[in-house]
Amino acid sequence: MVIKWCGRFHETWIGHSPLDVVSWHGNYCPCKYDLRTYSPVGAILFDHPDPSIFTVLTAPSGQERTANIDFVLPHGPDRDAFEHATSGALKPEKFDETMSFMFETRFPQHLTEYAAREARGLLDAGGTFAEPRLNGFIARGRAEWGRIRAALTALLAEGATGELPLLPLAQARMYLPIRVTEFTDFYASRSHAFNVGMLFRGPENALPPQWTHMPIGYNGRASSVVVSGTAITRPMGQVRGPDGPVWAPSGRLDLELELGAIVGADSPMGTRLSVEDAEAMIFGYVLLNDWSARDVQAWEYQPLGPFQSKALGTTISPWIVTVAALEPFRCAGAPRSNPLLPYLHEERPGFFDLTVGWSMNGQPMARTNYNVMYYSSAQQLAHHTESGCPMRVGDLLGSGTISGPARDQTGALLEMTENGKAPVMVNGAPRTFIEDGDEIALFAEARGEGYRIGFGPCTGRILPAKA
Amino acid sequence: MVIKWCGRFHETWIGHSPLDVVSWHGNYCPCKYDLRTYSPVGAILFDHPDPSIFTVLTAPSGQERTANIDFVLPHGPDRDAFEHATSGALKPEKFDETMSFMFETRFPQHLTEYAAREARGLLDAGGTFAEPRLNGFIARGRAEWGRIRAALTALLAEGATGELPLLPLAQARMYLPIRVTEFTDFYASRSHAFNVGMLFRGPENALPPQWTHMPIGYNGRASSVVVSGTAITRPMGQVRGPDGPVWAPSGRLDLELELGAIVGADSPMGTRLSVEDAEAMIFGYVLLNDWSARDVQAWEYQPLGPFQSKALGTTISPWIVTVAALEPFRCAGAPRSNPLLPYLHEERPGFFDLTVGWSMNGQPMARTNYNVMYYSSAQQLAHHTESGCPMRVGDLLGSGTISGPARDQTGALLEMTENGKAPVMVNGAPRTFIEDGDEIALFAEARGEGYRIGFGPCTGRILPAKA
Repeated sequence: MVIKWCGRFHETWIGHSPLDVVSWHGNYCPCKYDLRTYSPVGAILFDHPDPSIFTVLTAPSGQERTANIDFVLPHGPDRDAFEHATSGALKPEKFDETMSFMFETRFPQHLTEYAAREARGLLDAGGTFAEPRLNGFIARGRAEWGRIRAALTALLAEGATGELPLLPLAQARMYLPIRVTEFTDFYASRSHAFNVGMLFRGPENALPPQWTHMPIGYNGRASSVVVSGTAITRPMGQVRGPDGPVWAPSGRLDLELELGAIVGADSPMGTRLSVEDAEAMIFGYVLLNDWSARDVQAWEYQPLGPFQSKALGTTISPWIVTVAALEPFRCAGAPRSNPLLPYLHEERPGFFDLTVGWSMNGQPMARTNYNVMYYSSAQQLAHHTESGCPMRVGDLLGSGTISGPARDQTGALLEMTENGKAPVMVNGAPRTFIEDGDEIALFAEARGEGYRIGFGPCTGRILPAKA
Repeated sequence: MVIKWCGRFHETWIGHSPLDVVSWHGNYCPCKYDLRTYSPVGAILFDHPDPSIFTVLTAPSGQERTANIDFVLPHGPDRDAFEHATSGALKPEKFDETMSFMFETRFPQHLTEYAAREARGLLDAGGTFAEPRLNGFIARGRAEWGRIRAALTALLAEGATGELPLLPLAQARMYLPIRVTEFTDFYASRSHAFNVGMLFRGPENALPPQWTHMPIGYNGRASSVVVSGTAITRPMGQVRGPDGPVWAPSGRLDLELELGAIVGADSPMGTRLSVEDAEAMIFGYVLLNDWSARDVQAWEYQPLGPFQSKALGTTISPWIVTVAALEPFRCAGAPRSNPLLPYLHEERPGFFDLTVGWSMNGQPMARTNYNVMYYSSAQQLAHHTESGCPMRVGDLLGSGTISGPARDQTGALLEMTENGKAPVMVNGAPRTFIEDGDEIALFAEARGEGYRIGFGPCTGRILPAKA
């Protein structure tokens, strides 16, 4: 920084921009203010009527007669301040009982969200709870997740004196909890992979050769992720006909019972995550139904994988159950057929003892446990970065359809009805795939000693195709 | 709206919130201000020292002693204004030569970007050119694309008098032109699909049966899209070994020569786009290199498609060539083997006569034309929405590798070297795939009568794997 002072130039080096600091005093010692407690009185957005100012530091812009920022002493130079600063020690000091400094800038000044939205008192989440999605809160990091969880737990405990404003759930409208940055769907239940593989490729090739060595996944479509309760329209699509493809409403509309893991931290491009680091990056879990048009999928999926068959919508539950809440239910997953490569080695069990299932039009259809899965979310996330792929807060990782070996443990109608060949009875009538007007509801819960953790609703009703 | 005035309650209905308007006068006639020319003098962010105010309209909040907004007359009630408003006609009027009104709100006030960033005079893009990415500008819509293009063309014409500030390209640092919302990669060159299919699946199954009926595509990873010049690190990954998979640096790192289409408008969930509507939604094109680890791809891609083999990075050129600029080069694509289903029918030719190619370490390797492609971007975008999948401004659609039938027309080393079996000479040495330190550069251009449209650089150098 070069300054002109009393007719001479002075030079010094500072490790940041003058714009990084909020306030300066005397001989240019930077002071940082806590913007939550900093109250500009009369911050002038456009101009001010008082010309009696004295510029002490200017950062000129490329535009003539315009400065990026001027630091000025209002109402003329402050002689006492000058005397003090030039004769005293050069160290930061608090500037009390005097008029505040002033600066002018050609850039618009905004209140930070932190300053503007801070909810004082009960919970301090840096203003992020005033945002429409939780991405901002989640990005504050693992330590903050724990701090807020502890504060909320204390406020909600029996006999707690804090007055947390509560709203009955029936009066609340639930929104998508996060802005989904990207969505990846995995394929991690052995029974599901085998059952589906057998239907599409026969028993010889049912389980792909790499399946027991890596978590197979594909990129889904984030824009089509919606919150529980959103109606889903039956898609049109290309399906195989007797004389080539036809354009028709999907006749094999299906659900997929999954959990979704929410990535809670960014990882830069080129960084591979260990399973341990990946585990620490997962914020929590939602229920996830990856609606699938099986006839469209069968025709389109070779060689690049499912595309439009999975883009009609993905429903998630409206709140996120944190990993911290699930810790008491941590358990092992399915037994391994072979050792995994070291980058997928998991030190401690990566699964949770969660009952999961689904119903159709109110009739329970299947029930199994998340611990049937072969790959944990932490392993999936670590694998996701083996190429150096950058991850971001708000990325959603679908577990893959959760299916146990028995028919009443399957997480998709494709498996349950053997691709339509073996109908199931629903409210007294035989059914194969989802019909217009059907409502599918997923559920999941963990049961501890005297308490239960639910995942909230994850439902969707199918509307007829728009021809 | 219910107001209390002179001790009595008055009720009226207005079709909007009082917060929609900037200024009110007298008997509550709303006036809209153009924020580009509206200059608040002394907008007070936190408090003000003058208590002599008189509240005429309050919107109370749920919090005691706090209003969402107060409309106040500063310095006591304005008797003349009251007389005028109560005796005059109830119509909007301009409020001249008097002190402005004042309001207070508990919400933070921000200058709009439109007000703060408007570049007066030469170009009015609503302030969006001051943003770091073009998404905001693109979202302004097709009419605006045309208007700005015409204005820029006039400013840059020979003999133009406008003084557009210009910077030599060598002094400019180019950034990613858009925030990529989602990235989809297609597979639309018949030669490429056949050549690659033959290597992976043999000549019988080389071209998938649906290939001539639909644009096959898969969702890629948006977070790994980078601008030309960004170094790419060779990925580690699982590859097939003699005794099962091994963890190793990819030994078959490849490029893919593509164009990328930028989606320029949102389409809501459940909306299917016609090819014609899809064409009108495409803002422009970039060069695109979808780096691929072929050994990782071969092991992972069944049945859900490529995943980590394509997540190491995708390089695009730093500026977008608009569809309007390419109009003179519009032409037909590859001949069709069979009629397409009506939803993919294209009324007018959807391709462009563009020479495209690539070089390795400065040596030209292949050259072909974009018009070898079988599906246009408009057809790909229409197909992308057949399920009702919502699209968003900033979605990036890769054309698929552009390859002609001859060896020196191939857009990937996989094809050129027959998966490494037939090396090519590069600067005098035989080569199969990309080695550490190699630089790949794509190019594309359209040549008109006396002018040339270039696409800018799309280069990347490979760094060694991080073991």
